[in-house]
Amino acid sequence: MPKTRIKTYDRIVQDSLKLFNEHGERNITTNHIAAHLGISPGNLYYHFRNKEEIVHQIFLSYRRFISERLAVPSDRQMDVADLVNYLETAFEAMWQFRFMFYDLPGLMARNPQLQADYHQFVNGELQTILEGHFREFIRLGLLKMDLEDIEPVSVNIWLVVKFWFAFEQTARPKAPINEASSHRGVRQVLALLKPYVQDDFLPAFRQLVARHHTAD
Amino acid sequence: MPKTRIKTYDRIVQDSLKLFNEHGERNITTNHIAAHLGISPGNLYYHFRNKEEIVHQIFLSYRRFISERLAVPSDRQMDVADLVNYLETAFEAMWQFRFMFYDLPGLMARNPQLQADYHQFVNGELQTILEGHFREFIRLGLLKMDLEDIEPVSVNIWLVVKFWFAFEQTARPKAPINEASSHRGVRQVLALLKPYVQDDFLPAFRQLVARHHTAD
Repeated sequence: MPKTRIKTYDRIVQDSLKLFNEHGERNITTNHIAAHLGISPGNLYYHFRNKEEIVHQIFLSYRRFISERLAVPSDRQMDVADLVNYLETAFEAMWQFRFMFYDLPGLMARNPQLQADYHQFVNGELQTILEGHFREFIRLGLLKMDLEDIEPVSVNIWLVVKFWFAFEQTARPKAPINEASSHRGVRQVLALLKPYVQDDFLPAFRQLVARHHTAD
Repeated sequence: MPKTRIKTYDRIVQDSLKLFNEHGERNITTNHIAAHLGISPGNLYYHFRNKEEIVHQIFLSYRRFISERLAVPSDRQMDVADLVNYLETAFEAMWQFRFMFYDLPGLMARNPQLQADYHQFVNGELQTILEGHFREFIRLGLLKMDLEDIEPVSVNIWLVVKFWFAFEQTARPKAPINEASSHRGVRQVLALLKPYVQDDFLPAFRQLVARHHTAD
């Protein structure tokens, strides 16, 4: 019955993501996951040796999401809509996989395999994607920036995206992390980019910022 | 013997800070602290009910450090040296109290009193200090910035400062956090400010950036 096996495997990953996002990964055990799925702990252990393996599979989904959705398009020119779409997709990824970013250093410390793969992804593929976009936006005249500034500005953007939810959690401990948090995060990244936006594109840029204000 | 009592109390706080910074707060118990000081666990418990109380005292030292060292001077005009000194002091605070920033969300979750006080400090006093400096730097012509940008730029600076060590830890899991990490952090904050530096001050600003390059 390979079909059923694949289905249970995927359901474990999907439901774990949901439970981790809602309650925090630390508060969810494999027993909670099995109970939520209505399967026995033994059945869960048939698919995954431990919770860390489930978290690792979720990380791989996150990596696929980023790589597929944020790739620089090879078949057409990018435009201002791509800049918008790019940021919104980055925050959509953060939102869908938000439990990973509540406490990333803690999560890594408990999961060496995740740490190794995450490290490789961020310093390899993701860096290439981020800098590739910047160079395209500069080449197309959407952004104006000295070449020496690309790297530090990319790093700041990545840092704000990555730690936005953790920042909100520590700044507003009683408020839940919700989609308004994502909108505030997009605005913070837009604030980082604003000094580099070419005058021609400032009106479109301001509209984008406004869209994330009304959505609060 | 009030003198001895105060001394032991202070030594517990100081040595705990050292141990937390070197090994991470999670890996240090009250027994480790007592052994390091050469006192009995009972003697430690005479001063502190638990580790959370020690962490809370360390936080109060951090708060005093920030409030005293980063206050806007009332007796004289600020100049470009103050901008430099301001950033370096912020990172010095991060470095001296670095264990708090390795995993701030985790630390807060385990210490509700700390969470409440930290929250109050960040949203009250610290916000006032940060925005006060910005307004002074703008008024003095060191920075040029629309008033509407002060708040989002302050938030980004605070976020980069606060999560810099956590970012380095996840990006370079095998490298120790050291003073070179602080220098990279200062450079990232300078990159945030660069678009707003007035032309007259760009040479001094570039010298500052260079100083944090050679220090790596």
